[in-house]
Amino acid sequence: MKFVTAKTGSDKPFIGLVIEKTILHIQKAEFSLTGESWVPDSLVEAIDMGELFISRIKEIVQHIPSLQEHFFYELDSVQLLSPIPKPRKNIICVGKNYADHAIEMGSAADIPEDIIIFTKAPTTVIGHKGIVLNHSGITNQLDYEGELAIVIGKEGIGIPEDRAKEYIFGYTILNDITARDLQAKHKQFFLGKSLDTTCPIGPWIVHSSHIEDPNNLHIATWINGEKRQDSNTQNCIFSIEKIISILSRGMTLQPGDIIATGTPAGVGKGFKPPKFLKPGDIMEVTVEGIGTLRNKIEG
Amino acid sequence: MKFVTAKTGSDKPFIGLVIEKTILHIQKAEFSLTGESWVPDSLVEAIDMGELFISRIKEIVQHIPSLQEHFFYELDSVQLLSPIPKPRKNIICVGKNYADHAIEMGSAADIPEDIIIFTKAPTTVIGHKGIVLNHSGITNQLDYEGELAIVIGKEGIGIPEDRAKEYIFGYTILNDITARDLQAKHKQFFLGKSLDTTCPIGPWIVHSSHIEDPNNLHIATWINGEKRQDSNTQNCIFSIEKIISILSRGMTLQPGDIIATGTPAGVGKGFKPPKFLKPGDIMEVTVEGIGTLRNKIEG
Repeated sequence: MKFVTAKTGSDKPFIGLVIEKTILHIQKAEFSLTGESWVPDSLVEAIDMGELFISRIKEIVQHIPSLQEHFFYELDSVQLLSPIPKPRKNIICVGKNYADHAIEMGSAADIPEDIIIFTKAPTTVIGHKGIVLNHSGITNQLDYEGELAIVIGKEGIGIPEDRAKEYIFGYTILNDITARDLQAKHKQFFLGKSLDTTCPIGPWIVHSSHIEDPNNLHIATWINGEKRQDSNTQNCIFSIEKIISILSRGMTLQPGDIIATGTPAGVGKGFKPPKFLKPGDIMEVTVEGIGTLRNKIEG
Repeated sequence: MKFVTAKTGSDKPFIGLVIEKTILHIQKAEFSLTGESWVPDSLVEAIDMGELFISRIKEIVQHIPSLQEHFFYELDSVQLLSPIPKPRKNIICVGKNYADHAIEMGSAADIPEDIIIFTKAPTTVIGHKGIVLNHSGITNQLDYEGELAIVIGKEGIGIPEDRAKEYIFGYTILNDITARDLQAKHKQFFLGKSLDTTCPIGPWIVHSSHIEDPNNLHIATWINGEKRQDSNTQNCIFSIEKIISILSRGMTLQPGDIIATGTPAGVGKGFKPPKFLKPGDIMEVTVEGIGTLRNKIEG
């Protein structure tokens, strides 16, 4: 099950289910099949519903052959927003979670013993194919970071590692675009990570039931077709389970929370000379089992 | 004008206006006076309304003598929540904004040349008199930080310093409680700053029209009646106007955003030996022109 938040023309965004090359308008399908409207307007509210939402979707899926054609939209004909366009809190990000990336950003001394966590403002979030502002005049060191992201499915605190996966609603792809000059200058990462539009997320959230082992997924990033990052989430220092467990020690995780799990080696700053992003650049991040998130730099 | 979010018994929270030792239930007063209901349920939605909300309040205030007694609650009889109980994004915090605090946390080399910004999760927020969990087993270095906080009143990006004050809805008091051991261990501050209940805010928001110069306010913190912090916001390295201007370079500020402006010298970690918080400790932070925020550590 792949969930999108989609939009056609000036209509309000809707939750869709990806069925091959089409998107099913879930609310319309539900009402047509049952005469009821349990599915809410936004995906984050649907995630709040927990198992009830998933069981409702499973019922709808069983009746797909009987649904009218106009509940389905061609994937290419709609605008995909971020699956969660307006997160209720900052995006939670793991820093330097791949040893090779820690080394390219400094040296082996930068490989963290304890997890490093920073955040990105909700105003950074855009969707698949959304344009990333170049922020000229504010930074000239815009850089990409392809990442696997987790979406939390239920509230929890003090979550042990062996139960962590129960708290995951699904997985998506996130490009943690960073102004390296601001990141270095301000010491704490927040400002360099929070320029508007610097957090593309999508194209969709894949439900957790479809990803058997999130700690073994191929991840790669291309800039204008040139492969820059090529790794696997099994190279993460802190596993998905460990991340959830450490974060929830004293801090309640909530449905809809988005956690970016870190980026492997191959960011622009790691090259000599550095390969920072330029106006017009096309960024593509692929994560095995999820898909490809594509965005362009303005200009 | 002092705005609270208050609660009595099991009723839903309401927006109140502090009138001497009482709180006026604004929605009830409005409906009784006008037969209309423009004032929304939450203060953050009221802030979204901009000048319309303030002019509505001014109308209501003119008719206070004619209002029925039961629209007023004794201040001591209600529970004050954080004025914004569920912020829409993380609390934005300025680090080391008082030189003497930067020095007590390290040395003169720690006085920042460029502003340091980190965030606290929305799940940290509690109100005046709320209990701060002691998080024993997770930290044994819980510390206080009394601060003046700004609440943003309208959306803006690229805000120049000389227009920054137009974007302020009001001011409140914030205690940026910090687990010093986690703050140091995880390098980026987020985790050490984000344990549940470690961000008391309140008791109210004072409207910006009542604070002539936010860069000249006395600020002090007491622990169990012992004065620990005693300074003035004029000692801030980055003024209120500079903070808003720097933050909004490339990042949109939104109504309801809460910005903590930093803490002066005198935190527990600054003493030799350190004076960390213990179960049962009473913390009081006073900011001139606003009031006193009081909270207790669990236990």
